Amino acid sequence: MALPLWKNLLQTTKERILQQRRLSLYNGAHGYEEELIKKKLQQFAGGSINLSKEDNGIGILTLNNPRLMNAFTGTMMVELQERITELENWKDGKGLIVYGAGNTFCSGSDLNAVKEISNSQDGMNMCMFMQNTLTRLMRLPLISVALVQGKAFGGGAELTTACDFRLMTPGSEIRFVHKHMGLVPGWGGAARLVRIVGSGAALQLLSGTARVDPEKALRLGFSEQTLSSSDETRALEEARAWLSQYTEGPVSVIRAMKKVVTAGRELPLEDALRTEKDIFGTVWGGPANLQALVRRPKHK
Amino acid sequence: MALPLWKNLLQTTKERILQQRRLSLYNGAHGYEEELIKKKLQQFAGGSINLSKEDNGIGILTLNNPRLMNAFTGTMMVELQERITELENWKDGKGLIVYGAGNTFCSGSDLNAVKEISNSQDGMNMCMFMQNTLTRLMRLPLISVALVQGKAFGGGAELTTACDFRLMTPGSEIRFVHKHMGLVPGWGGAARLVRIVGSGAALQLLSGTARVDPEKALRLGFSEQTLSSSDETRALEEARAWLSQYTEGPVSVIRAMKKVVTAGRELPLEDALRTEKDIFGTVWGGPANLQALVRRPKHK
Amino acid sequence: MALPLWKNLLQTTKERILQQRRLSLYNGAHGYEEELIKKKLQQFAGGSINLSKEDNGIGILTLNNPRLMNAFTGTMMVELQERITELENWKDGKGLIVYGAGNTFCSGSDLNAVKEISNSQDGMNMCMFMQNTLTRLMRLPLISVALVQGKAFGGGAELTTACDFRLMTPGSEIRFVHKHMGLVPGWGGAARLVRIVGSGAALQLLSGTARVDPEKALRLGFSEQTLSSSDETRALEEARAWLSQYTEGPVSVIRAMKKVVTAGRELPLEDALRTEKDIFGTVWGGPANLQALVRRPKHK
Repeated sequence: MALPLWKNLLQTTKERILQQRRLSLYNGAHGYEEELIKKKLQQFAGGSINLSKEDNGIGILTLNNPRLMNAFTGTMMVELQERITELENWKDGKGLIVYGAGNTFCSGSDLNAVKEISNSQDGMNMCMFMQNTLTRLMRLPLISVALVQGKAFGGGAELTTACDFRLMTPGSEIRFVHKHMGLVPGWGGAARLVRIVGSGAALQLLSGTARVDPEKALRLGFSEQTLSSSDETRALEEARAWLSQYTEGPVSVIRAMKKVVTAGRELPLEDALRTEKDIFGTVWGGPANLQALVRRPKHK
Repeated sequence: MALPLWKNLLQTTKERILQQRRLSLYNGAHGYEEELIKKKLQQFAGGSINLSKEDNGIGILTLNNPRLMNAFTGTMMVELQERITELENWKDGKGLIVYGAGNTFCSGSDLNAVKEISNSQDGMNMCMFMQNTLTRLMRLPLISVALVQGKAFGGGAELTTACDFRLMTPGSEIRFVHKHMGLVPGWGGAARLVRIVGSGAALQLLSGTARVDPEKALRLGFSEQTLSSSDETRALEEARAWLSQYTEGPVSVIRAMKKVVTAGRELPLEDALRTEKDIFGTVWGGPANLQALVRRPKHK
Repeated sequence: MALPLWKNLLQTTKERILQQRRLSLYNGAHGYEEELIKKKLQQFAGGSINLSKEDNGIGILTLNNPRLMNAFTGTMMVELQERITELENWKDGKGLIVYGAGNTFCSGSDLNAVKEISNSQDGMNMCMFMQNTLTRLMRLPLISVALVQGKAFGGGAELTTACDFRLMTPGSEIRFVHKHMGLVPGWGGAARLVRIVGSGAALQLLSGTARVDPEKALRLGFSEQTLSSSDETRALEEARAWLSQYTEGPVSVIRAMKKVVTAGRELPLEDALRTEKDIFGTVWGGPANLQALVRRPKHK
């Protein structure tokens, strides 16, 4: 079932719309009403999600609503979906940095919007909308980093788990505060957190709502590195340099590398092996491979 | 296949019996003869399994057969099943501490009983009986802790892996001694241990039968904390305090938190995400959530 | 789907050929042409794969092509398959050490062979051939160790992930250099690496092509121990001693131990539990178990 999704990753642009539907988790068959929830979300406006695509193949995705610590308004949720679609279509992309404006990451959902959709039908549609978007973010063929400055709370903490890596600036914190809101994660944060830190640590972080500072995050394997600066410009520069260690090289190869690892982490072993074989087939005998064979006459 | 089990978790009491059958792994279709093995186990009497349900939502499950280091007699296996049923029906429960009487955890099975059921049919039925019970223990919507004092050997070591966490007192040890008995784990201890410490460490612990003291357990991520006292009363007090960090809060939310993590650890990612959505739906717009929205007007 | 494979592990020798087909991942139904690729690989000769089976139940598998740092020629790929078949049929085997001749592990594929099969059809067949062989290596009922001296590069690094454990000598290194060849792993190295070190560390090792020295390997949980000597004879002696901690004991029990752990790491939890039950059934009431019951009258 998951395998066909992967095969689709290798297809041409013609099937893109069908593809998005398949990369997503929910459609009409699950009782999901996308148009209805998008219309509703559009009513709760404010902030923006910005994307800049740099020449080196690194995209910068900015959560921009500093008045509310970059909390997600309804229109920001819709814009995030649009930016992810743009990233899916960016054939030269190799890496992605997600960060928040104004020296803080994201405080979750804008509660003014939340109050208006606190009924069951809207809540489930919003939940499926965000899970679809974050699942597509996680499956992008780009190596992704959440650059955490200031605070990543609730849905903001969940968003960090949809990236491959987390880098934290001094003094920053990630905190799953859902319990204090009478909630559990619903944007996929629990399922993904279990895979990053293990089920024991995940249960502690979620049911204990403890503050995760950079030291604790490193210890848990939740963050890769603590950056030296908490200044936005310099932190971004450090994150770019860190990421470029992994994005340096031919576009086709870097994207294939992300795909084999995504298969390895999502699929049962046998399916992951078969997918690795398919992805290997996209680079074997390809231009980058043939060039390397000319350069190095000795061994693989 | 696993998903319907989860949906069942959300159903009403009417379907409880059907539910238990589905939360279990084995029924008649697997050649499992529950009534036959229960009758047989009843013949090997001794000890007891006691449950006290405290007002704070924490249950205390005591293995009580100190004459044999709390080894499981046949009647204790049957009583464990009954206590787990009681816990499944305890709607106010949030946490569980499992410990052994007389300052030691559990030395596995009472070998007098084992000798009498060492034929193949009885052995397989006993194995399925215990796997059913321990799988239901693992899936309880309670945050569970094995408080290890003294020794947890063989089946006792396996029992600790059915809890979410392990806390050890100074001088205690966990040891998978199965190889010395010419056996491998059969109560699910191997499958669960792999998920807690990884397959490499699991293979070492099982095939090497090494003594795991509190320091080694911490290093392996097999234990969460070494308590300061090995006195029973004080150790229980410490375990209660440790657990209450995670059980503090509304019953519905704590139970939902355990459920999302259980889904995350048992199910493939896509199924875990869909289950998280369903569980999120049980708290979204619920009393605890609405109260929190009134209290905090700003963000999630 | 994976479960029937496991059941087969428990069958008699009569079905061995069918079994091999099922332990493998690919057959004609996947477009895999085994005879065609074997014929092709036979054309690229050089080196050998040697197996010695010691009386203590430990097999020593040697990659022997020191002129090319033990790079895999075509005939070596075919010989590896034959040696794995021999190991599957070795009913007294308990452990396996894989190492390279001439104080180095393996530098991947011989590029002279690679160049000749750089077209798509040959490449995919070679990939499926090697995945089949390495999957069967991983599933052997023997506790296996890669003894890494010198360099394990590219396909050599992938080979280490098909063993249960890795031991490294001082000054040795493992390096996934695929990116430099315009490739990604195709022998299953990515899928298996994710399961050993986690998906984050795997993505870093693969896309960063960093040198993994013994210290880093220990830190990542990628290696179990750094041996004290890099002399071949003494390193082998140390590896034998390390491994014998885990292989000491009755053949049937050691092999069953490896099987329960393999089930735990490959299968979803419910399937792993059922397989553990089946494997438990092969030792319960068996000779080693009955002897132990006579020796120890007290508890399991």
